[in-house]
Amino acid sequence: MKPSIPKGTRDFTSEDIYKRKYIFATIQHHFETFGFQPLETPTFENLSTLTGKYGDEGDRLIFKILNSGDFLSECEKKNPDKLNWTSKNITSNLSDKALRYDLTVPFARFVAMNHATLTFPYKRYQMQAVWRADRPQKGRYREFYQCDADVVGTESLWTEVECILLYDAVFSELKLNTKILLNNRKILAGIAEFADISEQLIDFTIALDKLDKIGKEKVIEEMISKNISEDSITKLLPLFEKHDDTQAKVAVLNSMLSESEIGKKGLEELTFIVENVQKIGLKTAKLELDITLARGLDYYTGAILEVKANDVELGSIGGGGRYDNLTEIFGVKNISGMGISFGLDRIFLVLEELNVFPKNIAKSTQILFVHFSDDENTKTIELIQKLRSQNIVCELYAENAKLKKQFTYAEKKNIPFLAFYGKSEQEQGIILLKNIVSGEQKEYSIDAFLEEVNGISFE
Amino acid sequence: MKPSIPKGTRDFTSEDIYKRKYIFATIQHHFETFGFQPLETPTFENLSTLTGKYGDEGDRLIFKILNSGDFLSECEKKNPDKLNWTSKNITSNLSDKALRYDLTVPFARFVAMNHATLTFPYKRYQMQAVWRADRPQKGRYREFYQCDADVVGTESLWTEVECILLYDAVFSELKLNTKILLNNRKILAGIAEFADISEQLIDFTIALDKLDKIGKEKVIEEMISKNISEDSITKLLPLFEKHDDTQAKVAVLNSMLSESEIGKKGLEELTFIVENVQKIGLKTAKLELDITLARGLDYYTGAILEVKANDVELGSIGGGGRYDNLTEIFGVKNISGMGISFGLDRIFLVLEELNVFPKNIAKSTQILFVHFSDDENTKTIELIQKLRSQNIVCELYAENAKLKKQFTYAEKKNIPFLAFYGKSEQEQGIILLKNIVSGEQKEYSIDAFLEEVNGISFE
Repeated sequence: MKPSIPKGTRDFTSEDIYKRKYIFATIQHHFETFGFQPLETPTFENLSTLTGKYGDEGDRLIFKILNSGDFLSECEKKNPDKLNWTSKNITSNLSDKALRYDLTVPFARFVAMNHATLTFPYKRYQMQAVWRADRPQKGRYREFYQCDADVVGTESLWTEVECILLYDAVFSELKLNTKILLNNRKILAGIAEFADISEQLIDFTIALDKLDKIGKEKVIEEMISKNISEDSITKLLPLFEKHDDTQAKVAVLNSMLSESEIGKKGLEELTFIVENVQKIGLKTAKLELDITLARGLDYYTGAILEVKANDVELGSIGGGGRYDNLTEIFGVKNISGMGISFGLDRIFLVLEELNVFPKNIAKSTQILFVHFSDDENTKTIELIQKLRSQNIVCELYAENAKLKKQFTYAEKKNIPFLAFYGKSEQEQGIILLKNIVSGEQKEYSIDAFLEEVNGISFE
Repeated sequence: MKPSIPKGTRDFTSEDIYKRKYIFATIQHHFETFGFQPLETPTFENLSTLTGKYGDEGDRLIFKILNSGDFLSECEKKNPDKLNWTSKNITSNLSDKALRYDLTVPFARFVAMNHATLTFPYKRYQMQAVWRADRPQKGRYREFYQCDADVVGTESLWTEVECILLYDAVFSELKLNTKILLNNRKILAGIAEFADISEQLIDFTIALDKLDKIGKEKVIEEMISKNISEDSITKLLPLFEKHDDTQAKVAVLNSMLSESEIGKKGLEELTFIVENVQKIGLKTAKLELDITLARGLDYYTGAILEVKANDVELGSIGGGGRYDNLTEIFGVKNISGMGISFGLDRIFLVLEELNVFPKNIAKSTQILFVHFSDDENTKTIELIQKLRSQNIVCELYAENAKLKKQFTYAEKKNIPFLAFYGKSEQEQGIILLKNIVSGEQKEYSIDAFLEEVNGISFE
């Protein structure tokens, strides 16, 4: 049997893992300095917790876990009409658990379960894998990682301001030039009001969201195909004009939204956020108003955010927004929240493409001790143990092989130094260190070696 | 709908997460200084990779993932006789993926897939969750964590020596007194030879393994029930005597194994390991020969290891051994390996019970800035940003609430300091810091504050 792994999944080996840890650690550090506390939820949730939260398409993409034991008999008990079974009508009889699909719904479930004891505003971060039965393609996996930070229990717009500062802090440290796109669901609702298409808000925003990708003509085509009238489209035309500066965009919105209460509220929120972020200042990110941004997620009720890397074409590397009703689906009302998410796998691809990972983030063997014979090894390992207690990564080659073989092992593993500490060296109380690349050798007394070893450059 | 989580799973909140991270980080640190490199495998494997590797009981406890799409039609295609379906005969038609059950089989699968390009001996560590559909009980969860280190591609017994040193390094740093029990599968095979029960090796070892728990009489009863003859049991009697020192135990074995080639080989291996570990010395762990140790895992072929905490009754907190044929099931022969595992969740319980977690491992908010009004906030956030860049965890209370409410928030979250930086402070260029527990207050100029803040004790 030739082994393989499921499509859309990956084995990660050391080089990738250290790079991924660098990203995780950077994000985590800023989550923590911003006062967010960690949360981890189980890999699987009750199926009923997840279904109906991500639309029909999402429901199909949820990985369900087959019930244990005699699942078929249990299924027959609940649904005896075996000949009329369909995949759809027996799924919930065959499965009562499913893999996490995102971090937001499990978080909402957690808040709903624990709202009586949590201290609000509750600020949590969560960095875990999620799974989707999507068709795999470049940059899209069936198992991938999200890093989310959310504040729930306050409507304060300072949360939006802080989330933007947090994006800026993380991406600046990762040396990634980004633009943070900002919109507001209320503005979209206001525009729909203005154009008399409130009933078609979703169709309208889905079409508008594509302006960047497919252009004005195609967006209008799509709107027409969704039965948006010519009159309405005429009213929407100002949205399709390109304006580079925020003031011009705001002017367009002001004229469209002057009659819409919700639209004016959205514009006010947006202005508050933009002005305060400007006053505080961002390190490297640019904040941009993007009237077309909708992000397709029905649960946003206020600010909508999306982050893109400037120098790489790879869609969004982060996104988020405000939601007023997230825990309502679990019976707990009036907990407004604001959250942002970092797409770990996409960020990885971008850093890789731009070649901006720091050097020396891997922790790998720095000194390989040549294995001579059983007789010397206890002394050698004693020395190795001392080095390890000084955080030097070192190992004794596993067996008494030819020097050539041991050397090749060190070369292949990019171990920079070979240490000779055989019988004669042990008798003399010295150690011989050989730089594998340059071939340079140097003898140390053991004391001098232990003292100087932290200063040896292991690059 | 009242939300809940699946039985046997847990939400982890910050306090637990920081404690768990402390254990993970300690284990990882020593894995790395011993020259092990990280590996991560996907959460789910092909079902065929996992089935048949853990015995019938194991197969039942594997969580299977229901196929996506129209799984029922697919199942009917492969198995059209719908009325004769049983849970057993359609499982593999309904599911082709399953959740990781341990870290060893995915590792073997990885080695088998990549053996042409790996550098051997290959030393990897892996710290990930595993899932079992077991009945949950104290200390046993359906989702739990294993931390494994394995060396494959060498038969050198120095690997066993190093694994014991690694256990000692980790548990010494965790301030956990442990005994490391050592046995050898070849010794068990030799004893079975000596007692003419080679055919009943498994039954014999399973019964012997229980000596500690159920005592000599019950073990003999169990052996009789498994058709082990009286003659054989008479020959086994010396095993049931208690000997505290290794030499006496070795003497017993020497007399039993003098005619068994495999038994002598096992004893020789064991002696080599014990003698060399003694010469090098352990920091805190005690190495003990335990002739009854079998660990029930069929794949061990040489050394068998198990670790127990001295001061808590909670079964083993680690275990491992040598296996010669692990990748053979995936078609790759002659890769001998040796590995050890740390049980994260059990170690957590032990450290908790002994109360030996270090203090201050959580990274939580150190200063809460009082929220006055929108007008002051940009300046406040600017100051907060400076503190964050000095790694001080601080936050602005989310909204303009009554001081009492903000104070309560700080108290509940154990935030030690409240900072007042309102209009008058900003005008004077000062900040007022209040210790929440003692009530003490101190005024700083901003420059002095930024300079001294790292020295303020945040306990």
